Amino acid sequence: MATINDIAAKLGISKSTVSKGLNNATDVSDEMRKQILETAVELGYVNKRMQKREKKICILVENMEYDTPNQFGHDIVLGFKQMAEPSGWAVDVIPISIDMQKLTPYSVFMLQQGYQASFILGLSLLDPWMQELRTAKVPTVLYDNYINDNPYIASVGCDNQEGFDLAVRHLVKLGHKKIGLISGPLDSYILKARYHAYINALEKYGLEINEDYIGLGYYVSESTRKYIPKLLEQGVTAVLFSHDVRAISAIAEFDDRDVRIPDDISIVGFDDLPMTAYTTPPLTTVRQDRIALGQCGFYALSCLLNHVTIGSILLRAPLIVRGSTGPAPRQE
Amino acid sequence: MATINDIAAKLGISKSTVSKGLNNATDVSDEMRKQILETAVELGYVNKRMQKREKKICILVENMEYDTPNQFGHDIVLGFKQMAEPSGWAVDVIPISIDMQKLTPYSVFMLQQGYQASFILGLSLLDPWMQELRTAKVPTVLYDNYINDNPYIASVGCDNQEGFDLAVRHLVKLGHKKIGLISGPLDSYILKARYHAYINALEKYGLEINEDYIGLGYYVSESTRKYIPKLLEQGVTAVLFSHDVRAISAIAEFDDRDVRIPDDISIVGFDDLPMTAYTTPPLTTVRQDRIALGQCGFYALSCLLNHVTIGSILLRAPLIVRGSTGPAPRQE
Repeated sequence: MATINDIAAKLGISKSTVSKGLNNATDVSDEMRKQILETAVELGYVNKRMQKREKKICILVENMEYDTPNQFGHDIVLGFKQMAEPSGWAVDVIPISIDMQKLTPYSVFMLQQGYQASFILGLSLLDPWMQELRTAKVPTVLYDNYINDNPYIASVGCDNQEGFDLAVRHLVKLGHKKIGLISGPLDSYILKARYHAYINALEKYGLEINEDYIGLGYYVSESTRKYIPKLLEQGVTAVLFSHDVRAISAIAEFDDRDVRIPDDISIVGFDDLPMTAYTTPPLTTVRQDRIALGQCGFYALSCLLNHVTIGSILLRAPLIVRGSTGPAPRQE
Repeated sequence: MATINDIAAKLGISKSTVSKGLNNATDVSDEMRKQILETAVELGYVNKRMQKREKKICILVENMEYDTPNQFGHDIVLGFKQMAEPSGWAVDVIPISIDMQKLTPYSVFMLQQGYQASFILGLSLLDPWMQELRTAKVPTVLYDNYINDNPYIASVGCDNQEGFDLAVRHLVKLGHKKIGLISGPLDSYILKARYHAYINALEKYGLEINEDYIGLGYYVSESTRKYIPKLLEQGVTAVLFSHDVRAISAIAEFDDRDVRIPDDISIVGFDDLPMTAYTTPPLTTVRQDRIALGQCGFYALSCLLNHVTIGSILLRAPLIVRGSTGPAPRQE
């Protein structure tokens, strides 16, 4: 384990300057502090004094809102804190951006702020820190992202395969044979995972896989408007959506076209957002238990902090059956 | 939640008889006790008095030895106890058999013995309790088995996909193009998972998938003897084995045929058993960290006991590179 001496020797500066740089003293230039922190990370320095003083951990959030109970991230943060705080951890919740990631490497940020571990929500495959996480040595848990072959990183998420499997099984029992998918583009780990889950489930139940039954588009209502007529033309009688928000936008779209749910078409969402119980009709959807996801996030971090090198924890993804799915219409 | 009264009413017997049956008193016939326990399970009765008295949990073991440090199950049991006992749990380790499973349903066994949860090692897909676990309501963690859609059950195991992915990547870097697999028959969850991991890894790295490169057989040395000549005839230059024991038996087989490891053929095992560091040559293999697996087993049970309905925890599966893999031989 590297010491302050090692950092001083490597940079050819005094121990006291290194110490000032590590402790954010104001009489060290920003450039020097940056060099000190980057060298500390490179040499694997751990600030033991800081760790003894306080058990500090953070939740880093991007592309996700969490301030009010209706927002997706709220319960994830709550579940994490429910487990972490009674165990003596101080938890900070910090929004992150791409600009901030470009400015400061992840490991430097963590060392500078004195965090021993983090739980990261909403990172996309294009974020600069994703690249760095492949080799980072800070215990880190990612929600809905996965890093191969790094024992310091673990993932938590819902079992997408189980969720879409249950959805397709439910629809098959109702007599549906042509089942479509409307999703965002496959530029995130999670959308890729759900896409493959859909394909695997169709295969498992012996249904036709046809790219004309699939619509992938970035903008929610635009792609709903574009793909729904196409899927209807193909004779699709049920549609899975990658997220509830897409399914909810589809309800309005079907309504505009006098296509009745579930008489003419069955639809299934993913997430079980609070509002899905109150749409017309209420939405059948795959539940992500967000409190449990947050709790899992802390369980996963506990494993890593205890040197139990887990790769992933998957949460059950039960199907919540409501009014938006029904028997397949008779084909004329 | 059902009470003793409910059980008594359903069976038309007195409360005191029910109580005697639940507490293994000797003045109740075996037949009556069986009826009482089965009814208790059916109605979802929980013996609160027993739970308050003692935090009791069990590890149930089949098809696996665990008595001495060299045996596969030893460290799994050890890792589990390391986590469970400091948390105040009494842990019993109990061998189970198919005959015993036929005699007593799992939920009845657990209620009768006063265990609140279990960690089950080595169950095969054919075991009677596997069927029952689909709907059982006892918190249960399975090592290397998976039950769909039951929130009381979770799984732990190594990430087979990651393990074989790393193995194939390593071999591809060494110039190998024809990579074979020798495995047990696909009648267990874990052998199926490794088989698919092998296929997926070949696909990912653009290698040929050919059923003539694959040998599946029940008896270790018999199938080694049968398949190794076949794979050599096909020009295979590297072989993955589903378990170290198969790879070790292959070392002797290659030796008999004057096929040199790794000059003529590279081989990779799975498990990282202690002895693999001392074979000639030492074996390159995918590590299952068995202490960590046991610890994970307890983490997973903790989640279930706290009503965090996880489905699975996967442990990292690092590749341990030793002398049994080397550059692919030049093809003449």
